[in-house]
Amino acid sequence: MVMAGAGVEKRVKAQVLSGFRDHLPAQMLLRRTLIERFRTIFEAHGFEPIDTPVLEHLEVLTGKAGENEKLMYHFLDHGNRAVGMRYDLTVPLARFVANHQNDLPMPFKRYHIAPVWRAEKAQRGRFREFYQCDADIVGSTSPRADAEALAMVAEILDAAQLPNFVIKISHRRLLGSLARLAGIDDSASETVYRSVDKLDKIGRDGVLRELRDAGVSESAGLGLLELIGRSGNPANLIASLRETAAGDEIALAALTNLSETFDALAQLAPGRSCFVLDLTLARGLDYYTGVVYEAAVEKPKVGSVSGGGRYDGLVGMFAGREIPAIGISIGLERILEVSEEFGLVQVPGSVCDAIVVFRDDVFADAAALTSELRAAGLRIDLSLLSNRSYGDQLKYADRRQIPVAVIVGVDELASGKATIKNLRNGEQFSVPRSDLVAAIRASA
Amino acid sequence: MVMAGAGVEKRVKAQVLSGFRDHLPAQMLLRRTLIERFRTIFEAHGFEPIDTPVLEHLEVLTGKAGENEKLMYHFLDHGNRAVGMRYDLTVPLARFVANHQNDLPMPFKRYHIAPVWRAEKAQRGRFREFYQCDADIVGSTSPRADAEALAMVAEILDAAQLPNFVIKISHRRLLGSLARLAGIDDSASETVYRSVDKLDKIGRDGVLRELRDAGVSESAGLGLLELIGRSGNPANLIASLRETAAGDEIALAALTNLSETFDALAQLAPGRSCFVLDLTLARGLDYYTGVVYEAAVEKPKVGSVSGGGRYDGLVGMFAGREIPAIGISIGLERILEVSEEFGLVQVPGSVCDAIVVFRDDVFADAAALTSELRAAGLRIDLSLLSNRSYGDQLKYADRRQIPVAVIVGVDELASGKATIKNLRNGEQFSVPRSDLVAAIRASA
Repeated sequence: MVMAGAGVEKRVKAQVLSGFRDHLPAQMLLRRTLIERFRTIFEAHGFEPIDTPVLEHLEVLTGKAGENEKLMYHFLDHGNRAVGMRYDLTVPLARFVANHQNDLPMPFKRYHIAPVWRAEKAQRGRFREFYQCDADIVGSTSPRADAEALAMVAEILDAAQLPNFVIKISHRRLLGSLARLAGIDDSASETVYRSVDKLDKIGRDGVLRELRDAGVSESAGLGLLELIGRSGNPANLIASLRETAAGDEIALAALTNLSETFDALAQLAPGRSCFVLDLTLARGLDYYTGVVYEAAVEKPKVGSVSGGGRYDGLVGMFAGREIPAIGISIGLERILEVSEEFGLVQVPGSVCDAIVVFRDDVFADAAALTSELRAAGLRIDLSLLSNRSYGDQLKYADRRQIPVAVIVGVDELASGKATIKNLRNGEQFSVPRSDLVAAIRASA
Repeated sequence: MVMAGAGVEKRVKAQVLSGFRDHLPAQMLLRRTLIERFRTIFEAHGFEPIDTPVLEHLEVLTGKAGENEKLMYHFLDHGNRAVGMRYDLTVPLARFVANHQNDLPMPFKRYHIAPVWRAEKAQRGRFREFYQCDADIVGSTSPRADAEALAMVAEILDAAQLPNFVIKISHRRLLGSLARLAGIDDSASETVYRSVDKLDKIGRDGVLRELRDAGVSESAGLGLLELIGRSGNPANLIASLRETAAGDEIALAALTNLSETFDALAQLAPGRSCFVLDLTLARGLDYYTGVVYEAAVEKPKVGSVSGGGRYDGLVGMFAGREIPAIGISIGLERILEVSEEFGLVQVPGSVCDAIVVFRDDVFADAAALTSELRAAGLRIDLSLLSNRSYGDQLKYADRRQIPVAVIVGVDELASGKATIKNLRNGEQFSVPRSDLVAAIRASA
């Protein structure tokens, strides 16, 4: 309830901050449906839920954010402490692991579905308050952990009913090696990552131009494009790259790691064709240390819906020792957006299975029937408009998108029957009271 | 995932802000279990879920908070707007109703379970970030709405497995009338509310002393105590007060309203003895306009677990017109606390039904079995410690509070059986593969 205070009578303008949103019931129901599906999958794989505070010491949040502090909501609290609102779920995870390391059996598998805040320029499809949906395995270097995380991504995208998704997999340590093998100097590696990351957007010519501008020779650039352009099934591709990389220990170790990940994936997600080895996948973030992935839907043009990878250097930042981790991040907001746009996951507009409508004089009967239906597990709105006509009450039910109305009238009560109106197709019929629950279930 | 940035290598101290908490898996599972039970009841009664932003224009939040602005986390955002973190769910509801009034069929029944923030002095059992759990019916003056809300409170406290709770009901307009009838001047009404509210704590003598200090005569004070001290079943008590209040229109209207609420309650929550009419209930907040209630458990000494009432003047504050509302607020944090303390609602310490343990050489079989068990709807952790002994793996499972281990060894595979170890009682036995799912369910 609201806090006490003098009733100031001035009129305040009701408005939501730019970049922020209210969630109306129908939107909440879609959001919740997806979150529950994802949660079910995380838990089927043995990931435990946690939560952390929205506010943290600013120092904790900026530990790794560096220049992005300007995107963070931060301020001095009442105790003059510098505090900030969390802008992701990974830094809080690192802090959490350090705080509770004695209570967390390793490997620690957790998921966290929660809002974060970023003071970004508000624009279509980009919000300042949005949910992240992350799952991480902390404390294991096993490629089987990577494979389990990747298998879970596929299940989640299935559960979101996203069509034709592809999960591109690569390795953070491979691209650098391939660049070296192509004859590109390590000093140009940042350009290589940045350019290859944009290959889809700027094309081969664009990449070559950027490499040339960074002093990379035409032939070295072409050599790199040839190497990362190779495709085929993972086992064959890895074998072919092994030959090319003979003698390059870093590349060979990365290839072995990739190979073990794909092998485990074949056991954990048998028969799936969505996983591809794509060496053009660079992933911009420089804290990745091993396998990286990105899941995307090209048709319809949805783009990236999930990304992540192995980052063995970050989670230990507060614990003062290296703690390996593999993480996946599901683009919940993007998935919600496309689900609404393409009608992928259909949810009702109201929680109610039915509304009981009646006239004032039979309130006792309507209440008794409502209790009976609720006891049977149905979600029932008992009309509060019984001083108005049936027509008004049905109109109200329709506006709330309640699918079924049960009409309790004097005639119905006398006959021991109930009248049901299906508000979607307008059909109205009468059923014996004993069949009412089943009839509502069938119509809802 | 974390935002990009330079990898600052300085070591930051991992600590949570005072008054804030991490939620570990076992705590999350209890919190979620209760929230899901409450949600199920809200929805059974036709309340729809909504959510609103954590940050609002400060002006929106202070519209009714007045002096409590000092308890609010507020700051200037990047656009130099004064913003604040919500400190309750009622002011956001009022703003929400004004913003969406054209899309919200009235009566609008919503629930909202979400965290709020208050910069209060942190102390045992009081946090700066905590959940509120509110349900309100907006846009109806019907006493049946009040009764529906009250009936729901009883169901929720049942679902929380709270023993022997009592739901005290009174009426905001009654206490003032009774004071007048006892001969107390309206000018002392604030003292009356404040003192009577503390009757439990300061006793009759304390109330009389405070009234005397406010200039109320001994006989008037005693008269008031006699009136509010009357008890009995609601119908009789209301009838007796009707006689006393004959001619006092305000008191009679309040009594009629109370009477209709209790009548509807008898239909909506038949046979319940938890509802009592208690005229000593004052509820401090001056925005209540009708029925008020408070639910408490006296044995064990838990105290107040829910409170609320009718407040017809607040929700319309942004819409610029009066919009009636009845609201209940469930003390989720207090209920969680006592649930842990008294072991009321028992939840497992892990989401996992079982862990599959194995040695490295049979990974393919372990993975296949895991997929099979997951497909049957079980939540299965596939051991990531297969390079270690069974003993180490079982110890890990035990620390995670996973109830069952399925041991996949070469012998088990050869015999077509599976070995199950119940980690709660140490029993170990072997079952045919076809009975495995049922055996895990029975042990978990």
